[in-house]
Amino acid sequence: MSRIDGRTPDQLRPVSIERGWSKHAEGSVLVSFGDTRVLCTASVTEGVPRWRKGSGEGWVTAEYAMLPRATNTRGDRESVRGKIGGRTHEISRLIGRSLRAVIDYKALGENTIVLDCDVLQADGGTRTAAITGAYVALADAVEWARAKKLIKASRQPLTGTVAAVSVGIIDGVPMLDLAYEEDVRAETDMNVVCTGDGRFVEVQGTAEGEPFARDELNALLDLAVAGCGSLAGMQRAALGAED
Amino acid sequence: MSRIDGRTPDQLRPVSIERGWSKHAEGSVLVSFGDTRVLCTASVTEGVPRWRKGSGEGWVTAEYAMLPRATNTRGDRESVRGKIGGRTHEISRLIGRSLRAVIDYKALGENTIVLDCDVLQADGGTRTAAITGAYVALADAVEWARAKKLIKASRQPLTGTVAAVSVGIIDGVPMLDLAYEEDVRAETDMNVVCTGDGRFVEVQGTAEGEPFARDELNALLDLAVAGCGSLAGMQRAALGAED
Amino acid sequence: MSRIDGRTPDQLRPVSIERGWSKHAEGSVLVSFGDTRVLCTASVTEGVPRWRKGSGEGWVTAEYAMLPRATNTRGDRESVRGKIGGRTHEISRLIGRSLRAVIDYKALGENTIVLDCDVLQADGGTRTAAITGAYVALADAVEWARAKKLIKASRQPLTGTVAAVSVGIIDGVPMLDLAYEEDVRAETDMNVVCTGDGRFVEVQGTAEGEPFARDELNALLDLAVAGCGSLAGMQRAALGAED
Amino acid sequence: MSRIDGRTPDQLRPVSIERGWSKHAEGSVLVSFGDTRVLCTASVTEGVPRWRKGSGEGWVTAEYAMLPRATNTRGDRESVRGKIGGRTHEISRLIGRSLRAVIDYKALGENTIVLDCDVLQADGGTRTAAITGAYVALADAVEWARAKKLIKASRQPLTGTVAAVSVGIIDGVPMLDLAYEEDVRAETDMNVVCTGDGRFVEVQGTAEGEPFARDELNALLDLAVAGCGSLAGMQRAALGAED
Amino acid sequence: MSRIDGRTPDQLRPVSIERGWSKHAEGSVLVSFGDTRVLCTASVTEGVPRWRKGSGEGWVTAEYAMLPRATNTRGDRESVRGKIGGRTHEISRLIGRSLRAVIDYKALGENTIVLDCDVLQADGGTRTAAITGAYVALADAVEWARAKKLIKASRQPLTGTVAAVSVGIIDGVPMLDLAYEEDVRAETDMNVVCTGDGRFVEVQGTAEGEPFARDELNALLDLAVAGCGSLAGMQRAALGAED
Amino acid sequence: MSRIDGRTPDQLRPVSIERGWSKHAEGSVLVSFGDTRVLCTASVTEGVPRWRKGSGEGWVTAEYAMLPRATNTRGDRESVRGKIGGRTHEISRLIGRSLRAVIDYKALGENTIVLDCDVLQADGGTRTAAITGAYVALADAVEWARAKKLIKASRQPLTGTVAAVSVGIIDGVPMLDLAYEEDVRAETDMNVVCTGDGRFVEVQGTAEGEPFARDELNALLDLAVAGCGSLAGMQRAALGAED
Repeated sequence: MSRIDGRTPDQLRPVSIERGWSKHAEGSVLVSFGDTRVLCTASVTEGVPRWRKGSGEGWVTAEYAMLPRATNTRGDRESVRGKIGGRTHEISRLIGRSLRAVIDYKALGENTIVLDCDVLQADGGTRTAAITGAYVALADAVEWARAKKLIKASRQPLTGTVAAVSVGIIDGVPMLDLAYEEDVRAETDMNVVCTGDGRFVEVQGTAEGEPFARDELNALLDLAVAGCGSLAGMQRAALGAED
Repeated sequence: MSRIDGRTPDQLRPVSIERGWSKHAEGSVLVSFGDTRVLCTASVTEGVPRWRKGSGEGWVTAEYAMLPRATNTRGDRESVRGKIGGRTHEISRLIGRSLRAVIDYKALGENTIVLDCDVLQADGGTRTAAITGAYVALADAVEWARAKKLIKASRQPLTGTVAAVSVGIIDGVPMLDLAYEEDVRAETDMNVVCTGDGRFVEVQGTAEGEPFARDELNALLDLAVAGCGSLAGMQRAALGAED
Repeated sequence: MSRIDGRTPDQLRPVSIERGWSKHAEGSVLVSFGDTRVLCTASVTEGVPRWRKGSGEGWVTAEYAMLPRATNTRGDRESVRGKIGGRTHEISRLIGRSLRAVIDYKALGENTIVLDCDVLQADGGTRTAAITGAYVALADAVEWARAKKLIKASRQPLTGTVAAVSVGIIDGVPMLDLAYEEDVRAETDMNVVCTGDGRFVEVQGTAEGEPFARDELNALLDLAVAGCGSLAGMQRAALGAED
Repeated sequence: MSRIDGRTPDQLRPVSIERGWSKHAEGSVLVSFGDTRVLCTASVTEGVPRWRKGSGEGWVTAEYAMLPRATNTRGDRESVRGKIGGRTHEISRLIGRSLRAVIDYKALGENTIVLDCDVLQADGGTRTAAITGAYVALADAVEWARAKKLIKASRQPLTGTVAAVSVGIIDGVPMLDLAYEEDVRAETDMNVVCTGDGRFVEVQGTAEGEPFARDELNALLDLAVAGCGSLAGMQRAALGAED
Repeated sequence: MSRIDGRTPDQLRPVSIERGWSKHAEGSVLVSFGDTRVLCTASVTEGVPRWRKGSGEGWVTAEYAMLPRATNTRGDRESVRGKIGGRTHEISRLIGRSLRAVIDYKALGENTIVLDCDVLQADGGTRTAAITGAYVALADAVEWARAKKLIKASRQPLTGTVAAVSVGIIDGVPMLDLAYEEDVRAETDMNVVCTGDGRFVEVQGTAEGEPFARDELNALLDLAVAGCGSLAGMQRAALGAED
Repeated sequence: MSRIDGRTPDQLRPVSIERGWSKHAEGSVLVSFGDTRVLCTASVTEGVPRWRKGSGEGWVTAEYAMLPRATNTRGDRESVRGKIGGRTHEISRLIGRSLRAVIDYKALGENTIVLDCDVLQADGGTRTAAITGAYVALADAVEWARAKKLIKASRQPLTGTVAAVSVGIIDGVPMLDLAYEEDVRAETDMNVVCTGDGRFVEVQGTAEGEPFARDELNALLDLAVAGCGSLAGMQRAALGAED
């Protein structure tokens, strides 16, 4: 069983996590999962949205977007169309929830961190690459805020790490980290977000063709947990590189 | 372990499926899961969207919305704000995908069916009630189209039935079909869409607080599969009532 | 002279006013004029819009909308189109003005009541049914606010009752409370809003075909005043039912 | 009983109708009712909106707007806010209906005439001035189209003339053609659109304070019919001036 | 070398500057450059936008728009389309910058002046006519504010005068103040904004066809400086007329 | 006279032009002017906009945007705000006009090329970097189209090269290619677009503080022409690298 690019079914594409890509942002990462490239920046501001003021708690949110020619055929800009599409909304919300799962709002204090995940080139798995990269940018932004005393040095707002990967069934075979061509052919497509200790933050499985059975679901979850574990290691390596 | 409303953890709320609620629509259902009430209408039109013309295949899509005072405090109308929120987009897309999972586009022919799911009163589980009710409205619309010869009588566009239910973990206990107050307290929240034969169309689990472990996920899936099975029975009963 | 549904020219369709339809809203009514069904909810909030703050006076406003398949052919959602149409605006404003005509802002105090009138099924006369039902929801919301002490018990913000009906000329004959098919055929179409004591709050007459003469206008006004009188009686009966 | 500007209750403000104000439009009129000044242009194009194609019938529509500083305090531009307000929608629709009341669509043929009514300075009665001026611009545009053979010379799309005036009750006295300061003080406010032969096209009466009685309505209608009669004379004079 | 309308290459079209055109605005000018007619109003309000509060400095901004039938063929209203086009944005920004170039923010104090420039009829050079007219409206508004003591009489917020003119190359000949037909044929088109002492505020040159050489640019600048000088004289004359 | 970064007044920042940055686009360039980094992609599609169909001529257009954290403080996404700002519109139009100046529409045939210029990191001169990089992407896209026979090999749609640079006066000294900090301090700011043969396509000069004199304008133009000449050399080098 050979994949388009020669990988084994349980193999990730080459992953790179390049920190400090942008000079302005408090945290910034250019993450690649194969040919998928996402620029993740973390912006820290003092204060929180109105509905949270006076709570002593912080906030973390995310926005995802694609450059118009990140894909094989050019897509219209959402700014030009004047509205954000459902897919963009859905992924932005997923990224935000995933990162908030490892945030201690009290320790963050009344600070807001916005993660912008802009897809520069798309080849499948943009949302999982975005989550994986955004976590690293978030970690850098948190350190920046602690260094700047926005967050007390004695507090650690991060309660763990988070990474994500896609899995799917193609011609009956469960596979890890689908490239675009594989994604198109998949009968079932699942995105799984795990913490570094192997528990689940999000599980989103969709039958694109035939409904899937319980044992297929189990096989996909096995693959995804292993894949997220590998990614967690790469995140640790990337963050350790500078220390 | 007693729930707010006295149910056992594996018990659905009272469900009602009232067909033919609207005189205009080709299929219409007022579905209730406890105090959650959703009006589902199916509108059939000849022809398909431009990108599908000439394919010989049909299309099914869905739009979900809440009346402003369906909830405990009034929400702004999305029409007045001029944009659709992320949650609305996400649920509309989920309903559409769920119904398309049991549609044979070829058998449907170049016809379009739009499912409108408007929440008249919300008390948790609006998306799962919407999917469950919309399937019944869709089935009525398909019969209408066959009777009108828009679809050949020899063809059956429905390949199965589909229903959905929410499950969640509250104070460590997995529970079925959460009411709003339960949903707010849940540590983990999952929506599961199954076909009548017990396979999965969608699995969407989210850790609201702590990440969840594999065995918790398994327990939730067990509950959900059983709940969807019960709902499938009620759908059959509702559709059989008239025959 | 027999009408489509066998009514006499001066006869209303069967009217029903069902209070307490929604568990969340402070007042809620499902009103029917024949096959026209409108869900009217009244939402009370403390405080007033910015331009009215510190005046000691309250505010009442209304929003009208149609579900997409309330009508014979499905209409696009205004939230999806991103803008509210002229007709919707016009009717929302009419309902708001009609209800404010029987409100004593001082007695209401700095509270706001929003009336949402959502047409679940349309068969002509949706705006007049909305006004007639919204008045009853408003009366319930006012009582709720007095019971909650948002409004002093010694004050009565309602200065009277208000109801509305359509009239029109079909084949030269003035008729009361037009159903959709009649409305389409009417040469002249008028909506009249009256207080319970028979005076006018709004008179909106439009020549759809030929301009209309003064005596035709007079005949229409006679019919409308009588129809509003009947509706005022039904409103009183509905509100009295619980006392 | 003396009015702000010394008029008698049944007296119009000075009215001027200046044809040919714009060099580009097929018909153009700068109309003044006292200090209210509205620029009305009529634009003729061959063809009709899609829903009317192949019918052999034409279409007439109108758009109304105010310059931001037409009023005493500057209003935000609707183009900047990105949406059209309810009042603007309502008046645009009123003007369109009023003009269509004197159009024979068949005689117009598949041509479209758009009336743009832009208020350069507002002092009450902008919609009635707009209707009165737009009729004259429309008449010029129709003549232009006949001269250009877009409309057969043997056909006359205009079936009559149309003019409009406001009336209201101030301190209990019915008055004609309210200036802004009077309009603000009026208990009842009515806009009446009549054809040149004294019949009604639109009657829109609103109780701003107290509901109004039948005899008050009658007195207002008397005043309005007389006022429209005077305006019809001025329209004829303006159109005859050049012939 | 004769121009369409018989002018010499270095000749302006007939210019008129009519002050006090509107009764509501603090400054208002109807300016004409040939058949181009722009209504410029200046609206003074106390206070400044949020980002400038507490600075002790004022603000001046501008909005430009065209009536739909200002041009030869009717354009859609930007309010109806729900968005402002790039050209409108660009010109509004140009007018604002041009006027701010002669404003001393400190002397203005925390007051805001908005210039609305609405093109009633277009025949080329609408932005340059707008700047030239808006300056005069601004001067009147400043005097109004000084008379009202919003601005201290001892302070003069205006540091000079500003006017603008278009120039272009047609069939190789540099020409001043292009009418629409000339503008369409121009190979190069430039708008130049000068202060009354002959210095530049804005220079915007665009090659419509062939790129332009340095000596052509110089010839255009010579023409424009002279043209702006003439316009400055007319502005002074207009402002002096009343004193 | 030493600049922030040690450059001489007539010195460009380090420039890099990296072709083939994206695997999907027909032409793609990551261009840097110092810390300013812009991703320029060229997308070729057969066919032209509706208004150009049947003309035998092609079309070239551009869209410019900034990632939210390209700048020092995060800006709101235009897609989220639902409208495009004036600055974005203005720069998109400038880029489009600049590239069209070197296009022979006939030779291009009925093909459309869209240039997307997305600023990944901003440090002044984003529009000039965008034009300079977009030209190279355009050249690659044209070659791609010729290779694919969308354009006849015997035809060359490019009539020359185009590059752009900013110049400004800081503390009285004219300087080339301003970085952001310099731009903020500049009294006069000019963007100049030149063809490879040293002629002008666009000249846009703005007095940010004091108006500027003719000799200052001349000094700025001298600098800009030389700077564009250097950039043209780098474009040639970049395009030659692969041949």
